[in-house]
Amino acid sequence: MAELSAETGVPVATVKYYLREGLLPAGRRVGPNQAQYTPEHVKRLRLVCALREIGGLSLAEVADVLGVLDAGRAARVVLGVAQDGRVTVRPVSAAARAWALGRVGELFGAPADDTDPAVANLVTVLAVCHGLGHDAVSGKLAEYAALAREVAAVDAALIDDVGPSRRPAETALITTLLGERLFAGLRHFALVDALGAAPAEA
Amino acid sequence: MAELSAETGVPVATVKYYLREGLLPAGRRVGPNQAQYTPEHVKRLRLVCALREIGGLSLAEVADVLGVLDAGRAARVVLGVAQDGRVTVRPVSAAARAWALGRVGELFGAPADDTDPAVANLVTVLAVCHGLGHDAVSGKLAEYAALAREVAAVDAALIDDVGPSRRPAETALITTLLGERLFAGLRHFALVDALGAAPAEA
Repeated sequence: MAELSAETGVPVATVKYYLREGLLPAGRRVGPNQAQYTPEHVKRLRLVCALREIGGLSLAEVADVLGVLDAGRAARVVLGVAQDGRVTVRPVSAAARAWALGRVGELFGAPADDTDPAVANLVTVLAVCHGLGHDAVSGKLAEYAALAREVAAVDAALIDDVGPSRRPAETALITTLLGERLFAGLRHFALVDALGAAPAEA
Repeated sequence: MAELSAETGVPVATVKYYLREGLLPAGRRVGPNQAQYTPEHVKRLRLVCALREIGGLSLAEVADVLGVLDAGRAARVVLGVAQDGRVTVRPVSAAARAWALGRVGELFGAPADDTDPAVANLVTVLAVCHGLGHDAVSGKLAEYAALAREVAAVDAALIDDVGPSRRPAETALITTLLGERLFAGLRHFALVDALGAAPAEA
């Protein structure tokens, strides 16, 4: 266990906790007080950390996601479970919600169903922008959606590309949860660059 | 204060807490135990909630961001402060970090400086993908970066468009922090759509 901790940078106490919670399978017993861990344990521990620390999932959400992943469910099922934990809780007025639901419906050419966690998230974020008076954001929604489709096409190609040694559903998960932070970082970088020509004091 | 709470859906106890912490300016005293709040208070309270609940900033980070915003600093300064709170803490090995730093450098055509919080974030996420064996993600980095530049161009146009009644720096903040969740939602939606043709069981 000391080596598992050293190799991943995860404190021993945390590794023990993940073992107790069943996020990490038990090692093979090789003595009364010793267990052996394999490279598979290292991989799994790194995945748990990435989902927690970069993906921002809670322990319970990680357990849910790993459960459907291990059950061999398809990528989109795994993504649905991961998205479920990301529904924003901000209460928004019924009027703002109805307005946002209408905008999402227009965008996708069908009435939006906000029992779908992905739709519920979009509706909340849009309704909050509306409540803040930042309606211009929703005016650009069609442009953002078109670019999001292009990014998703790159994601989908990546998921198709993975060799037989990797599970496509795991790649989908990494691509979206870690890819969300990655893409946000790239976008931030590009925006600062675009704004850079302006003087530092407004 | 009851009306302020009713209009925004924020509990009175939370409003009191934000007042004590200085995130919300005091109302005008109109009696020994009564204060008057203006539409500006409603706007500010909504902004604080959005940054907290959708942007995922801590109270201290919200205070920092509002401080530079109120000081009239330029959009890119405000974005830098907001990004600072988002640096991921996952410890990564020196080798993985050096590798990721090299990739970011190649991408931007200059040696990357990971004392910049945006670069530090990118480097950590890339290094974690590398550690997970998901190197294919970094193989698509140039494609993601090109699309991120297009998204940032839409963001920049939005910031340029805002009328005199809105501060460009606030629009930049909303566009990136809330826009990050919005874009992730759109991308998730498009990816599920792209994967939808495949059967539900892998």
